[in-house]
Amino acid sequence: MFKQLGLIGCGLMGGSFALAMKQAGLVERVIGYSKSPSTTERAKQLGVIDQSAESALLAVSGADIVLIAVPVAATDATFRAIRHLVSPDVLFMDVGSTKRDVVDAARRSLKERAVAFVPAHPVAGKELSGVQHADAQLYRDRQVILTPLPQTLPTLVEKARAVWTGIGAHVRLMTPEAHDAAFAAVSHLPHLLAFAYFTGILQQPESEDFLALAGPGFRDFTRIAASDPAVWRDILIANREEVLRQSEYFRGALGVLEQTLRDCQGESLEALVQGISEARAQWRLGAPRRS
Amino acid sequence: MFKQLGLIGCGLMGGSFALAMKQAGLVERVIGYSKSPSTTERAKQLGVIDQSAESALLAVSGADIVLIAVPVAATDATFRAIRHLVSPDVLFMDVGSTKRDVVDAARRSLKERAVAFVPAHPVAGKELSGVQHADAQLYRDRQVILTPLPQTLPTLVEKARAVWTGIGAHVRLMTPEAHDAAFAAVSHLPHLLAFAYFTGILQQPESEDFLALAGPGFRDFTRIAASDPAVWRDILIANREEVLRQSEYFRGALGVLEQTLRDCQGESLEALVQGISEARAQWRLGAPRRS
Repeated sequence: MFKQLGLIGCGLMGGSFALAMKQAGLVERVIGYSKSPSTTERAKQLGVIDQSAESALLAVSGADIVLIAVPVAATDATFRAIRHLVSPDVLFMDVGSTKRDVVDAARRSLKERAVAFVPAHPVAGKELSGVQHADAQLYRDRQVILTPLPQTLPTLVEKARAVWTGIGAHVRLMTPEAHDAAFAAVSHLPHLLAFAYFTGILQQPESEDFLALAGPGFRDFTRIAASDPAVWRDILIANREEVLRQSEYFRGALGVLEQTLRDCQGESLEALVQGISEARAQWRLGAPRRS
Repeated sequence: MFKQLGLIGCGLMGGSFALAMKQAGLVERVIGYSKSPSTTERAKQLGVIDQSAESALLAVSGADIVLIAVPVAATDATFRAIRHLVSPDVLFMDVGSTKRDVVDAARRSLKERAVAFVPAHPVAGKELSGVQHADAQLYRDRQVILTPLPQTLPTLVEKARAVWTGIGAHVRLMTPEAHDAAFAAVSHLPHLLAFAYFTGILQQPESEDFLALAGPGFRDFTRIAASDPAVWRDILIANREEVLRQSEYFRGALGVLEQTLRDCQGESLEALVQGISEARAQWRLGAPRRS
């Protein structure tokens, strides 16, 4: 389908995309660029990329598909570095977990060339970052949200859909605003809460003893607390308004639960937990609402 | 090792203990009692118990080991129901996730017979409750905390240790107070937070759309929100003081993180997350501190 993938950012997300594209036979060659030369070198050794480029612009040169897989805050600088080669005969995508800031950056830095850009957010990840954890199956059966600009070429949106579908993902279109509100709720706030929870433990003198006693519930609840600091700095800052709004819902609910404890209201507490427990038991990963 | 296990409460925890004891060849016969006759019937059909008893007292009769596996708040009533048969030639244990309340109940209701009681908390579970999910491997490689009373017979503590070790668990002794403080931190608070988080989502009109977009991070973070309402009502109420104290640490840490977002302090946020992420990445389940 494609001759050459230009990969900007050879980490977990970008590396997994390159591996998946190769495995699906959707691309012949991958040219990769990373800010750190050792990452690019490692990606080459692991067979994630075929050749390294010395700059983002050189990674784009000759490509018919480009994936920008850098921390969200670096997207704008990447757009500026490559904009002279951004044109509608090449499909440009990103993998950022926030979309309003990326769309704003595309408008600002790519201007009329933004027609070639299809903002994408694959809802996938691992708590382990780095190209050494890249996995051709990372996007299989995961959702990918595309948030095209009004001016994005429909042919490129369809091409983007075909690419992600081709590597096993399920594609959905949303506005950047609806995307950011939803992911503040189901992803960004949980990360903030897991960070806060883990900090609260570490602040206590008994933290080492506590951690030695922790079980499987703790393991799963805090898995996301091991996420990549630079990635989550950018996501939380970029989407801070929505995240803080979601945190207010959370604080309200926590306050109510705490009050049932203070008042020893076992029945109210059980009724609340009953509703939550049933709703959570009904939820299934990868069972998107049909609408 | 034992002739007859008297099982009071044939749910996930009790049923898994019975299966594990049988599989390890540590018991010949299991007599089970549950509040709900249909549970007892099901436990019998599944081979978890060999025979059903019509009361807790009858389940104890003839047993040389008794496991009380009921919601924590029902422990005291169980003690009162069986106390006439509690004697030092039988090993009595519970599986409650809180221990101060259980120890208090043992003192109050068993009086001098409390010498036969070894309070136990196996740090294991599933988000699915009920005997149909009982699993002979549930306690394998998990920690079990014993919190004996000052008067508990040391020979019975050693017997309890041998039983749990025999089914693959790792045993540790603690005071009930230290136990409850630690588990408020690593287990009870995470449950409260997961309940509050899920409630905050459900309160919003867009909740159904949000939930359809949720990914693997959400799945793991909220797994414990599907826990058994009656069990968690009792745990959170019984240990409310420690849980509320832990929640204050959490709220403080959340406030600091939120302030970095409001102030767009990317560097501070990254430094905070860096420390958390490294600490979480170093943590390993079942790697208790050697002390």
